[in-house]
Amino acid sequence: MVASRRPKAECPKGFKDYFGQDLKRRRQVLTQIAEIFELHGFAALETPAVETVAALGKFLPDSDRPNEGVFAWEDDDQWLALRYDLTAPLSRVAAQFRNELPMPYRRYAMGPVWRNEKPGPGRFRQFYQCDADTVGSASPAADAELCILASHVLIRLLTPTGFASEAIRIRINSRKILDGALEAAGILDPENRAASASQRLAVLRAMDKLDRLGREAVRQLLGAGRKDESGDYTTGAELLHDQCEIILATLAAGELEQARTLRNLRDIVGTSETGLAGVSELEQIMELVDVDKDASAHCTIDPSVVRGLGYYTGPVIEAELGGPEAGPTLGSVAGGGRYDDLVHRFTGQKVPATGLSIGVDRLLEAMKARSTADRGCGPVLVTVMDSARLPRYQEMVTELRQAGICSELFLGNAKNFGRQLKYADKRESPLAVIEGSEEREAGIVQIKDLERGHRIAESASYDEWKSQPAQFSVKRDNLAPEIKRLLAER
Amino acid sequence: MVASRRPKAECPKGFKDYFGQDLKRRRQVLTQIAEIFELHGFAALETPAVETVAALGKFLPDSDRPNEGVFAWEDDDQWLALRYDLTAPLSRVAAQFRNELPMPYRRYAMGPVWRNEKPGPGRFRQFYQCDADTVGSASPAADAELCILASHVLIRLLTPTGFASEAIRIRINSRKILDGALEAAGILDPENRAASASQRLAVLRAMDKLDRLGREAVRQLLGAGRKDESGDYTTGAELLHDQCEIILATLAAGELEQARTLRNLRDIVGTSETGLAGVSELEQIMELVDVDKDASAHCTIDPSVVRGLGYYTGPVIEAELGGPEAGPTLGSVAGGGRYDDLVHRFTGQKVPATGLSIGVDRLLEAMKARSTADRGCGPVLVTVMDSARLPRYQEMVTELRQAGICSELFLGNAKNFGRQLKYADKRESPLAVIEGSEEREAGIVQIKDLERGHRIAESASYDEWKSQPAQFSVKRDNLAPEIKRLLAER
Repeated sequence: MVASRRPKAECPKGFKDYFGQDLKRRRQVLTQIAEIFELHGFAALETPAVETVAALGKFLPDSDRPNEGVFAWEDDDQWLALRYDLTAPLSRVAAQFRNELPMPYRRYAMGPVWRNEKPGPGRFRQFYQCDADTVGSASPAADAELCILASHVLIRLLTPTGFASEAIRIRINSRKILDGALEAAGILDPENRAASASQRLAVLRAMDKLDRLGREAVRQLLGAGRKDESGDYTTGAELLHDQCEIILATLAAGELEQARTLRNLRDIVGTSETGLAGVSELEQIMELVDVDKDASAHCTIDPSVVRGLGYYTGPVIEAELGGPEAGPTLGSVAGGGRYDDLVHRFTGQKVPATGLSIGVDRLLEAMKARSTADRGCGPVLVTVMDSARLPRYQEMVTELRQAGICSELFLGNAKNFGRQLKYADKRESPLAVIEGSEEREAGIVQIKDLERGHRIAESASYDEWKSQPAQFSVKRDNLAPEIKRLLAER
Repeated sequence: MVASRRPKAECPKGFKDYFGQDLKRRRQVLTQIAEIFELHGFAALETPAVETVAALGKFLPDSDRPNEGVFAWEDDDQWLALRYDLTAPLSRVAAQFRNELPMPYRRYAMGPVWRNEKPGPGRFRQFYQCDADTVGSASPAADAELCILASHVLIRLLTPTGFASEAIRIRINSRKILDGALEAAGILDPENRAASASQRLAVLRAMDKLDRLGREAVRQLLGAGRKDESGDYTTGAELLHDQCEIILATLAAGELEQARTLRNLRDIVGTSETGLAGVSELEQIMELVDVDKDASAHCTIDPSVVRGLGYYTGPVIEAELGGPEAGPTLGSVAGGGRYDDLVHRFTGQKVPATGLSIGVDRLLEAMKARSTADRGCGPVLVTVMDSARLPRYQEMVTELRQAGICSELFLGNAKNFGRQLKYADKRESPLAVIEGSEEREAGIVQIKDLERGHRIAESASYDEWKSQPAQFSVKRDNLAPEIKRLLAER
C-alpha cells in the first residue's frame, strides 16, 4: 500500500472522541439522573438514531434557522435522517403507540443527537440530550412535577461537589402571561393570532436578551432597533412607546414576595383571558412545588424568563447556576416548558405535553470546575520483571481483582522497566507492584506509590522524602490486603 | 392541514423503539459489564456515531459481503457514514492518538452500530455492540485476559438468573493451528499465502459449519460440494481425500484431557512453524487462564472453533451457552480473537491487537428466558379523588419519593376513577393509594394491592379472596412506612 493512499486517521470535523474518566463521569451522572427520573415515575424510552425525514418534520425547533440542519440521505424509497433532538422522536412514538402507552405518558430519554451545522470551536455536531416529558396531561401538576424534578436532579448532582445550594435557581414563567401582556398592549389580537405572529416573535426575542444585554438594549430592540458595539444593526419590533412600557413592566414584575409578583402580573394582563389563565396556572404550580420543601427553596416565578424557542404554549422553566445574588452565573443547565402541538402533526388530535431538558455537558463542566483533579484514579499496575514467569504475575492481578481492586498486568515488552513505569504514569496508576528474583526468593513484593512519588518529586524536602518512602516491601501473601489498605488511606 | 399531508407515525424499517423495563435491564447489564471491564484495567472510549468513509474503510469485516452495507452521505468535501462496528473506529483512534495513549491500550466501548442491510424479521439495522480490545500487545497474556474477562462477565450476569454454571462454555483455538493443518495438508504454501487465499477461506468456511450441519456435511463441503435439503447446491473446497482427512482430524482433535489435545494438534501440524507457534501460544494462554479458578472451569481448547470472519490471525475465542453435555445450546453470546492489521491501514506500522465482543442482545434474551416475569415493577400510583385538593396528593408522592419509593401522581383527567386504575395497570403499578373525603376526615388512606388483586382475580378461591383483602386502610401519617413494608414483603 503506498503512503499516499493511506486514509487520514481523523475524527470528522465537529465530532469528538471521549476517553476514560470523562466518560465514566458522564455515565455516573446519567445513572443518577435516571434514578431520580424513575423515582418520579418516568419510564425510559430509546428511539433509534435514525428517523424518516417525514416523521422528523425536517425542521429544527428554532424557527429562524434555514430548512436544513440535519444529516439526511436517501434510502430505498424514502429519506432518512439522524434525529436532531429527542422531542421529535417522542412525538412520533406518542402517535405510533397511542393505544398501547399509558396516558398520561411520562417518559425520559438520554442519548446523542446530531446537527448538521458548520463546525466551529466548541460547537459540536453530535452532543448529548437528557429529557423528561409528560405527554397527555394538561394539568399544571405536570409542570410542577418538572420543576420539582429539575430541583432534585441539580441538588443531588451539584451539592456533593461543593456547590452552594443557593446557586441553584429555577425560574418559572408562562407564555400565556407574555401573550396576556401582548394582548393588553394591543400587539396580539386573540381572535387573529396569525396576523401578529412575526411581531410577537420579535418581541419575545427582544425580551429573551434581558439577561445578556440589559434593560436599555431590550428597550431599543422593542422599539426602532439597536446598533451594537461592533456597529451591527438589529431591526426592532417597532412597538409604540406605551406598548414598550407594558413589556418592560412585565419583565420587571418579579418581586421577592410571590403574592406581589402575582398581583403585578394580574394588573399587567388586565382583562386578557389568556393572561389571567397563565397567572392562575403559575399560582397552582407554585402551590404544588411548595409541598416539596427541597424544591420550593429553589423555585421562583420570574416574569423575565422567555426561552428563545417559538413553540412553547404555557409554563416555561429555566434552571441556572449562580446569578445576581448567588455568585457568577454559569448559565442555563436545564430548561423546558409546555408545548401542546406535539402529536397533532401525525394524528390531527391536540395532545398536551410538557418537558424538561437537562444540559448534561454543561452540568458536567460545572461539576468538573468544582471538583478536585483525581490523579491516581487508574488501575494498580503489576509489572513484569521476568517474562518467563507470567503466571506468577497473573496470579497477583487475579488476587487483586478478586478483592475488587482495579488492576492490570503489564502487557507490553517487559524488557525495559522504565517503560513500564512510564506506562503506569499514562494510566494514572496509583500503585505499581514489583517482584524480581530477589523478592521472589524472599517471599515479598515491592509496592511503589506512584502518586506519592509524583507529589514528592514536585515539592517534598529531603527529610520528607526520607521519612515517606515511596517504595517499600510487603509479604507476598499479604499483597491484596496491603494494597486495599493503601488505596483506602488515600 | 389536510389528512393526506400528515406524516406517517412510523419507525423506519429495520429500526426499533425500546421501552421501560427492557431498557432498564440493558442499562443494568451494561453497567455490570463496564464494572468488570474496569476491574480488569480496560478504559472507556466513546467515538462518535459518524466517521469519514475513508477512515471506516467502506468495507464490512465479512469479506464476502458486497462493498456497501453502510449508511453514507456526502458532506461538504468528504463522504461521511455511520459506523458499522466498534473496531474500525478503534483503529482510527489508535492511529490518531498513538503518541498520547498508553501502549498497550486496553479499551472498552459500548454503543449502537448501524448496517445498511435489507431489513427482515429479527434483523435490525441498528444494534448494540460491547467490545473490549487490547491494542499494542502481541503477548498471549492479552488473549488469556480476554478469556478470563469473558468468563467473569458471563458468570456474573448469568448465574444470578439461575443459569447452571456448566452451561457457560468458552472455547479457544488458534488460526495459526488451522493454518498449520492447511500447510501440513499441502493446501497452504507458507511462502506464498496469497496463491491459496481463496481455497483457505473456503476450507475455513466449511469447518465453521460443523456445529450447524455436522461432520458429513463438512466432509462434502471440503470436497466436491453439497446439496442441501432444499436442493440448493454449495460448491466445495475441492480438497483431495487425504487433505480432507487432515482437516477432519483437526476438527476432531479436542479431547477431555488438555495435554492429549495439544499432542494431537502437534501431530497434525507436523513441521509447520506457524502451526507449532499456534499450539505453543494456546498452551501459554491456558496456563494463564488456569491461574484464575473461576475462569479456568469454563475455558477449553477446541480445535473446531473457526469463527467465520476472515481477518483473525491468531487465537480465537467463542463463548456459548449450553451445548452437547450442558443442555440445549443458546448459541454464541461472545466471541473474538487476535487481528494484527488494525492500525496498519493508517500508519503503515503493524500493531498487534486482540479483542472480545459481547453479544448484549442475545445475553439479555438468555437472561430474560430464565428470569421470572416481574409484574408490578412500576411506580406506586397516588390516585386523585378530588382535583381541587391536588397539593394533598402531591404531598403523598413527595413523602413516598423522600422514602426512596418510585411513585407518581395521576396526571390525567381524574373524573373517571376506573380510568385511573386502568392507567395503574398499564404502568404495572404494584399499589395504588386512594384518599376520598371520608378517608380524609378519618385521617386514613386506602391502599389497593393491584398485584394481589390480579393474582386473586386469576386463581383465588372465595375463602382466599376473603382472607387476603386486596384493599385496606392505613393511617395517613404512616403512609410511607406502610408502603415500604408492603413493597419489601413482595
